[in-house]
Amino acid sequence: MSLAETKASQLCPANLSFVLEGIKKVKFEERPIPEIIDPYDVLINVKYTGICGSDVHYWEHGSIGDFVVRDPMVLGHESSGIVSKVGSAVTTLKVGDQVAMEPGIPCRRCEPCKSGRYHLCLYMAFAATPPYDGTLARYYRLPEDFCYKLPSSVSLKEGALIEPLGVAVHVIKQAGVVPGNSVVVFGAGPVGLLCCATAKAFGASRVIVSDIQQSRLEFAKKHLGVDTFLPARVSAGENANRLKEENNLSAGFDVAVDASGAEPAVHTGVHALRTGGTYVQAGMGKSEMNFPIMTVCAKELNFKGSFRYGSGDYKLAVELVATGKISVKEFITAEFKFEDAEQAYIDMKSGKGIKTIIAGL
Amino acid sequence: MSLAETKASQLCPANLSFVLEGIKKVKFEERPIPEIIDPYDVLINVKYTGICGSDVHYWEHGSIGDFVVRDPMVLGHESSGIVSKVGSAVTTLKVGDQVAMEPGIPCRRCEPCKSGRYHLCLYMAFAATPPYDGTLARYYRLPEDFCYKLPSSVSLKEGALIEPLGVAVHVIKQAGVVPGNSVVVFGAGPVGLLCCATAKAFGASRVIVSDIQQSRLEFAKKHLGVDTFLPARVSAGENANRLKEENNLSAGFDVAVDASGAEPAVHTGVHALRTGGTYVQAGMGKSEMNFPIMTVCAKELNFKGSFRYGSGDYKLAVELVATGKISVKEFITAEFKFEDAEQAYIDMKSGKGIKTIIAGL
Amino acid sequence: MSLAETKASQLCPANLSFVLEGIKKVKFEERPIPEIIDPYDVLINVKYTGICGSDVHYWEHGSIGDFVVRDPMVLGHESSGIVSKVGSAVTTLKVGDQVAMEPGIPCRRCEPCKSGRYHLCLYMAFAATPPYDGTLARYYRLPEDFCYKLPSSVSLKEGALIEPLGVAVHVIKQAGVVPGNSVVVFGAGPVGLLCCATAKAFGASRVIVSDIQQSRLEFAKKHLGVDTFLPARVSAGENANRLKEENNLSAGFDVAVDASGAEPAVHTGVHALRTGGTYVQAGMGKSEMNFPIMTVCAKELNFKGSFRYGSGDYKLAVELVATGKISVKEFITAEFKFEDAEQAYIDMKSGKGIKTIIAGL
Amino acid sequence: MSLAETKASQLCPANLSFVLEGIKKVKFEERPIPEIIDPYDVLINVKYTGICGSDVHYWEHGSIGDFVVRDPMVLGHESSGIVSKVGSAVTTLKVGDQVAMEPGIPCRRCEPCKSGRYHLCLYMAFAATPPYDGTLARYYRLPEDFCYKLPSSVSLKEGALIEPLGVAVHVIKQAGVVPGNSVVVFGAGPVGLLCCATAKAFGASRVIVSDIQQSRLEFAKKHLGVDTFLPARVSAGENANRLKEENNLSAGFDVAVDASGAEPAVHTGVHALRTGGTYVQAGMGKSEMNFPIMTVCAKELNFKGSFRYGSGDYKLAVELVATGKISVKEFITAEFKFEDAEQAYIDMKSGKGIKTIIAGL
Repeated sequence: MSLAETKASQLCPANLSFVLEGIKKVKFEERPIPEIIDPYDVLINVKYTGICGSDVHYWEHGSIGDFVVRDPMVLGHESSGIVSKVGSAVTTLKVGDQVAMEPGIPCRRCEPCKSGRYHLCLYMAFAATPPYDGTLARYYRLPEDFCYKLPSSVSLKEGALIEPLGVAVHVIKQAGVVPGNSVVVFGAGPVGLLCCATAKAFGASRVIVSDIQQSRLEFAKKHLGVDTFLPARVSAGENANRLKEENNLSAGFDVAVDASGAEPAVHTGVHALRTGGTYVQAGMGKSEMNFPIMTVCAKELNFKGSFRYGSGDYKLAVELVATGKISVKEFITAEFKFEDAEQAYIDMKSGKGIKTIIAGL
Repeated sequence: MSLAETKASQLCPANLSFVLEGIKKVKFEERPIPEIIDPYDVLINVKYTGICGSDVHYWEHGSIGDFVVRDPMVLGHESSGIVSKVGSAVTTLKVGDQVAMEPGIPCRRCEPCKSGRYHLCLYMAFAATPPYDGTLARYYRLPEDFCYKLPSSVSLKEGALIEPLGVAVHVIKQAGVVPGNSVVVFGAGPVGLLCCATAKAFGASRVIVSDIQQSRLEFAKKHLGVDTFLPARVSAGENANRLKEENNLSAGFDVAVDASGAEPAVHTGVHALRTGGTYVQAGMGKSEMNFPIMTVCAKELNFKGSFRYGSGDYKLAVELVATGKISVKEFITAEFKFEDAEQAYIDMKSGKGIKTIIAGL
Repeated sequence: MSLAETKASQLCPANLSFVLEGIKKVKFEERPIPEIIDPYDVLINVKYTGICGSDVHYWEHGSIGDFVVRDPMVLGHESSGIVSKVGSAVTTLKVGDQVAMEPGIPCRRCEPCKSGRYHLCLYMAFAATPPYDGTLARYYRLPEDFCYKLPSSVSLKEGALIEPLGVAVHVIKQAGVVPGNSVVVFGAGPVGLLCCATAKAFGASRVIVSDIQQSRLEFAKKHLGVDTFLPARVSAGENANRLKEENNLSAGFDVAVDASGAEPAVHTGVHALRTGGTYVQAGMGKSEMNFPIMTVCAKELNFKGSFRYGSGDYKLAVELVATGKISVKEFITAEFKFEDAEQAYIDMKSGKGIKTIIAGL
Repeated sequence: MSLAETKASQLCPANLSFVLEGIKKVKFEERPIPEIIDPYDVLINVKYTGICGSDVHYWEHGSIGDFVVRDPMVLGHESSGIVSKVGSAVTTLKVGDQVAMEPGIPCRRCEPCKSGRYHLCLYMAFAATPPYDGTLARYYRLPEDFCYKLPSSVSLKEGALIEPLGVAVHVIKQAGVVPGNSVVVFGAGPVGLLCCATAKAFGASRVIVSDIQQSRLEFAKKHLGVDTFLPARVSAGENANRLKEENNLSAGFDVAVDASGAEPAVHTGVHALRTGGTYVQAGMGKSEMNFPIMTVCAKELNFKGSFRYGSGDYKLAVELVATGKISVKEFITAEFKFEDAEQAYIDMKSGKGIKTIIAGL
């Protein structure tokens, strides 16, 4: 399929959708516009969608871990849009409202859902995670309570960044960052950088970001005002010592966040923590790796996973942008038309820029 | 040095001590009886001392990790005894009281000490951890608040078991076990078994212990009334699935504790947990190992270390024994005279029994 | 209306219901059998219903605080029953299963619902709280996840006690009771007594119950094995001092629970706590009262409300009974036929016994 | 005794101290300079001391609650100074360092001390709380770990404000303020205002301060940029409703702090909270008062006391000032010479300004 043959503009855009058919095989397809079924449903005209590493991974490999794309699936899950229709019971939104779209709908009935951890729902339907279609379509249906109205101070473009910011908010809550904490973040991609910004918004007094790409560290320094660390080609223990020395933290950091998934970063993070410190694994990488487990034990560390976002995270992410505590505009380094979505994936794969967004129809 | 030459009974037992001089090289030595220096000091006539895996490790290897025995060091840290002298400010103990002895004295001034985590004190002086002498002596000095009076329902022999029970109490607190929880413990040595007993005392409704030695599982079944699991020679994932199926816990366990230090146990524990579950690493093993890190991330696990015991742990351990909620008598499977201490180490090394204790002078 | 005229047995019991029409004015009424609407709905044939103080209060006064019975309302909310029909999506229950019925259905969409506190739902529909009908009917409809299957070791009669036990479980969780705690409970009615039993099941080492009725204290001593306290006609401060002295707790209790709603009990509880202790207000009484607020401040107490039951409480309540950790059979001191429901209210009002239950049809 | 007779400058200022002898009876007295006894002791030349409501209360009434001034007692506890001598074990401070002085020394041995709550120490020695002398002297001795080095960005005058800021930090930690919270503070005195500033530093998105003095509200608006509320002469319920409406918080506030001690403020705070919200009582007032206890119960509130400051509070207070997150300079509205200390108390009593400080010798 060539892009030329399927130019979005040539199709009647009832609910034109960007569909992954197989490895690196995508197409545009007319899908039916979703119906309002539940009285709490809202129909959104999607306006901007960011591309995430996981989208690229599905596009390139056709699967992530146990999640395999078996049937054609619409891509995309970092979206904002405009309310175009509301169900009969909807009271907080009206047609025309601009919203950030939380793309995972839990069952609301299982034990995790009822205990405040709906993001761990046993029956989660998450956009662009097989078998559920994503948001790279003209229209997408969501329950009212998963649409977050953007105040006038937050644009629709910024609205598409609420999703990765929600990831970062969840990470920093998992880390339990409180005022006065020292935090080191490994990986200066979008999530790592947003973790830095969120840690600062949570009152961390020291935030250091570590990355092997100097250009990303410069972005961090310039736009977030955080200190940076370029790991040397030495052992994780030595890098950890340098990190502590350079930042005058002889006892170690309160919090380490990995947003890289890289084994040396994981080791450096564990060694850089103080006794009793907290580590959060946010980055996806190899399913298994060598791990300094006795350090976790002897320093009585708290080594936690962080998965997507849950209760209150999207709401807080919108608020942090609305109040100016976090600025996300600078993160958007490329914008593509809907009909050029495939090119966006190709560029993204090559590692260009920080965050690429695709405009909607 | 032959044991015959140094028979304890032939020496004037002012403060006869059992000293590690080098790898597998021990001797009995007369040391001065400690003076009461601080008004809160208490002098204890040590009556029973259990042998711990770490004692055996120092005896066999001369070091544990970064801790190296450079000068002769008295061994032992799991002790009970009788108060033989008290400082002028001591109000809660009197000569003749029987006590369990908490063997690590913190500085009381550093940040961990002042924030409720004195067991992570930056300047901890811990018995039989170089360079600090241990409790295998006739007399040992402790501050009043590190001596826990044994009520009449708890014997001095049981008092020597308070130390490993304190370890288990700390583990189960770290695990956050609450009534209704399902808990799997890997390793049926003294600490693993005491973790089982403590988890039950904390209200866990399901406690399963896993070990590769059938005899230890039988001890657990008989004395603790817990269910058991004998891992098969299959992958950790398969063992985890069997564990969940056999116990009718399709979503997984709430809590996993490793008290074995074995890599397959660590993997099985991580895979056996439910999403959002808590894992505690209590067992010491290889400093680094292969680790299912992405499962920690995707299931949003809380993977925690546990180190020794701290605020309130010894007190609760005494109480659990005093009230009959935990029975520790059965754990003592061998008892040696003080002069036969070396033989106790030799037997212990060979893996006999559950807990070996050495009588004092 | 005379009971004679409406004898339940004379009516065709399609869905015979016990309806409160006005103050002390009740009738039996045929109501339509509820339909299965949602695929997760379950229809229950109600078998036993306990009477709660709040039921009696509505019957006697027609209102509780802001909740006013304006239209005829079916009474009852402490029920167990047998599944008689299941919706198409129900997977965990089948016709014939015996269940405890959690009687408050939250919206599942508001902020409290999504953050693990569905019991504080802004749109809660709670049985026998106006305008929602209660469970004193032949049939009652509930979502699957609010029906808790009773294992064979728990009878339907015991099943009706799960509701007040759920209240107690919630109180003790709010109190944060952990092993080793000392707990004093004020009020030896059903909830107070169940709080005692639950505190013990959570590992409290000391549980004392205080009441002005000697007979209730004797019930507590006999059936729960807890210590008792009969307040003297002295100040709250003096009673608090006696409580601490009698129980050898000079620093004060870790936890105080009020299940009486009486002002002297509240004061005694606050004064009996140690610095940093936790107090939970479970009993309903005067909306405002004199209060020792500076003691709360100077001892840095945590004074908490407890409202109904929420995430995980019913499940744990069933489990505590099923595993024998709590015995509730003894609490049932009177049983009435459905057609004698009014008499049950009359007797209950007179303060007889501990818990009265009404059999279903 | 007239001030003229005792002019400080006429005395040889070895360790001139400002001593309370009885109700409104003060004098200057030469006391011996404290000796370095413990190797961790530090001798401070006190440079600035703020006056607290409690100091004024002792001066005016001779007692606070159970604390009665029986013997002459040096006043003052909000101080900063310069290190003039250090014990042999001191490593983190040297002569000439400028420090904020934490004025309460715990025993380090009791249960609260060892569990991270040393501010609730059973044997606390707190400056200017009978029978312990205060800091309004030329020299004062403290352990090293209760002296907090002021970085060059924090002046000695600001250093004297660290004490009330420490109080506020403790309150806001007790309140559990996290980013996104809405907070209402009652009372715009020094502690209330510092609670507002600290709540903002902890990420609260809405902070409202309520006071009956318009001038204090204007100070709050101007220097802290928070919104204000002037209570009307209506019921607490009505004021609470206005508070919620004016701030567009129909569900209520997440957090309420009382720093006034006034009964109407307490009631308004309780009614203004959302279900599940947290209230912190920081202000001292009548020991008992009428209290809306059933609202605490039905809304399942967390009503907490806050007492002084403890683990980590002073350190964070210094850091918040040092990093510019909180500005305290504006709070100092009057400064007196040491010899005019009595006049400072007289003025303070009359309610002038926000914070009065007394210079040292």
